[in-house]
Amino acid sequence: MLPRGEIEHRIAGFQAALRSDGLDGAIVVQEVDLFYLSGTAQSAHLIVPAQGEPALYVRKTLERARSETPLERVEPLHSLRDLPGALAACGLTGGRLGLELDVLPAALYLGYERRLEGFELADCSGALRRLRAVKSTLEVANVLAAAEMLSHVTEWMARHARPGITEIELAAELERELRLAGHQGLIRFRGFNQELFYGSVLAGPSAAVPGATETPIVGPGPNVAVSKGASRRPIERGEPIVVDLVGSHEGYLADQTRTFSLGRLERRFEEAYEAAREVLHRVAAAARPGVTGASLYEAAHDLAREREGFMGAGDERVSFVGHGFGLEIDELPLLARGWEEPLESGMVFALEPKLLFPGEGAVGIENSYLVVEEGVERLTSAPEDLVEL
Amino acid sequence: MLPRGEIEHRIAGFQAALRSDGLDGAIVVQEVDLFYLSGTAQSAHLIVPAQGEPALYVRKTLERARSETPLERVEPLHSLRDLPGALAACGLTGGRLGLELDVLPAALYLGYERRLEGFELADCSGALRRLRAVKSTLEVANVLAAAEMLSHVTEWMARHARPGITEIELAAELERELRLAGHQGLIRFRGFNQELFYGSVLAGPSAAVPGATETPIVGPGPNVAVSKGASRRPIERGEPIVVDLVGSHEGYLADQTRTFSLGRLERRFEEAYEAAREVLHRVAAAARPGVTGASLYEAAHDLAREREGFMGAGDERVSFVGHGFGLEIDELPLLARGWEEPLESGMVFALEPKLLFPGEGAVGIENSYLVVEEGVERLTSAPEDLVEL
Repeated sequence: MLPRGEIEHRIAGFQAALRSDGLDGAIVVQEVDLFYLSGTAQSAHLIVPAQGEPALYVRKTLERARSETPLERVEPLHSLRDLPGALAACGLTGGRLGLELDVLPAALYLGYERRLEGFELADCSGALRRLRAVKSTLEVANVLAAAEMLSHVTEWMARHARPGITEIELAAELERELRLAGHQGLIRFRGFNQELFYGSVLAGPSAAVPGATETPIVGPGPNVAVSKGASRRPIERGEPIVVDLVGSHEGYLADQTRTFSLGRLERRFEEAYEAAREVLHRVAAAARPGVTGASLYEAAHDLAREREGFMGAGDERVSFVGHGFGLEIDELPLLARGWEEPLESGMVFALEPKLLFPGEGAVGIENSYLVVEEGVERLTSAPEDLVEL
Repeated sequence: MLPRGEIEHRIAGFQAALRSDGLDGAIVVQEVDLFYLSGTAQSAHLIVPAQGEPALYVRKTLERARSETPLERVEPLHSLRDLPGALAACGLTGGRLGLELDVLPAALYLGYERRLEGFELADCSGALRRLRAVKSTLEVANVLAAAEMLSHVTEWMARHARPGITEIELAAELERELRLAGHQGLIRFRGFNQELFYGSVLAGPSAAVPGATETPIVGPGPNVAVSKGASRRPIERGEPIVVDLVGSHEGYLADQTRTFSLGRLERRFEEAYEAAREVLHRVAAAARPGVTGASLYEAAHDLAREREGFMGAGDERVSFVGHGFGLEIDELPLLARGWEEPLESGMVFALEPKLLFPGEGAVGIENSYLVVEEGVERLTSAPEDLVEL
């Protein structure tokens, strides 16, 4: 069970954000937000008044929710008809009520709107996402353990990569290594229509195939219905292999990319890799509390201004070079065009400069970092060299 | 690329459903529905007037969408400000417009509402889900190939199951076998807050741990944040091991469960397994076009009326014994309490009678079936016997 103090601190932070946004309370129903604020991911309505004690109203299963949450008020809720009564029991009989409008399906939203006469429904997802962006000591420890899971990637690649193995087959071996290390399998992606399966293992031209996923590198995928990630293409000698993997620990994620090859790469790929690595180091060195995500994004672009294919090609140029993560892989902060909010101590982010050579491949590197008072600490500890196996 | 005739047939079916529901058109944006109706899962707005030619307005990536869809009208859409113009170009300047309200996030819905003055927004997800429930010949072939992927489960279990291996470790080996057979990895689950990772591998008491997922068997999961599926518990001799796996082919899924043990099971588990198998056969024998999902659900319950723990225990008794599947694992039809719609030829469903022994374990079996004129055809071909390894 999560420590009671941890949950109390998160709830207090959320309540402060609700008050600051002029909300009288909120109902939280998405499983990741529920877990964050209550310690359980069981199906429930968490009612959080802007002041006072929250209550967890559980649909399924009550027993498990009670065994998992340190919250004191945990009650059953068998029907949504009982929701107004539950709100009233938390002191909420009207006013502005927050819902997670970024993830709540419209049909459910409209159902709440019908049932909750007297309330004005508003969006509390921004408040929640900003709160979740700053990690506690406990969360940082989990992120660090997730990052540690990725430290053996060079050893795993040496064990499994060979000419002729397909991207999916190589992915199968790396995924098994992660799973044997205790990986949860599921990678939670908050954005609509966004999905990720462990990360991606892409070689040669596959790594330059753009797509709909909001990642710098997308890949062809196994089929046209799942058009992202590893394909059935055999990996050949001399092509860059970009291995982007997500580790996990206690629900928390960490993100790392390394580039490999079977045999020697052409000099231009090696040079591009060194350029990406230099961007990584210089942007990481500039990151500290108070610096905005937009300025780091622009710095990355300035550093590589003259390099064709940097961080996406042509129209498909990516709009970010880094992203927060935690229980989901797409958390705040963003190191992105126009993201003017400053970094804060306790935030974690992945920085992923990648260079695409359309039709030929990609190279890149990615580390996860923790923002501390003096700058950032690197969390992903795998060696950073380009590895020619 | 999907055959043009296949896409034309689907679009025509959707347009008929729109007209029958009194809608003038629809905008489809969820990636699975997009793939179903257009042949590409790239990020786009598919505009389907109730009469006339549809058009695909693509955000990312246009090139890939054009190479994947047989639709003729494929245009870029760089900003949602251009959406009213795109609708007008399809003959839609007002009236009732369908959106996928079951999956569209509320914030996006409210954004469309602001932008689409003059339209009354309505839900077209029911129409789309009913359409998708009846599979074409091409879709059935894909489902069958996905089912075939699961035919080696006994051989895989014989290779990997051993006393002391944890559920997650055994899952890692089975997942690798699936991936090496070309599995796409991702399992798409349409329901809000629902997730599945390949299926679940659960032994002894783990299989009786209930939870929030809408499946008969849930399991403890690797941690409290991901509280479903395999755990780190070592598997012991003499306990039932329930192996529920989802195969995949070209985006299509198939669902199968078999029960194993290391050494001999207690007689009561063996008897329960035989009871589940009898329910499977008798319900499958009763399934044919015209029969409702509710009647099959009730038949399953009647058959097992006196058996404690059948299909869930106590308050956690599951409300269904079978479900449709296809591109997503939770499609129509439902074999569930109150589901009064009749089966139709061309539907596929998974039937999964499972018996829970709270605190001790579960046994069960699951096959995927195709509804044909005379009844059903079994798609999952693994031997049905309880396997004591």
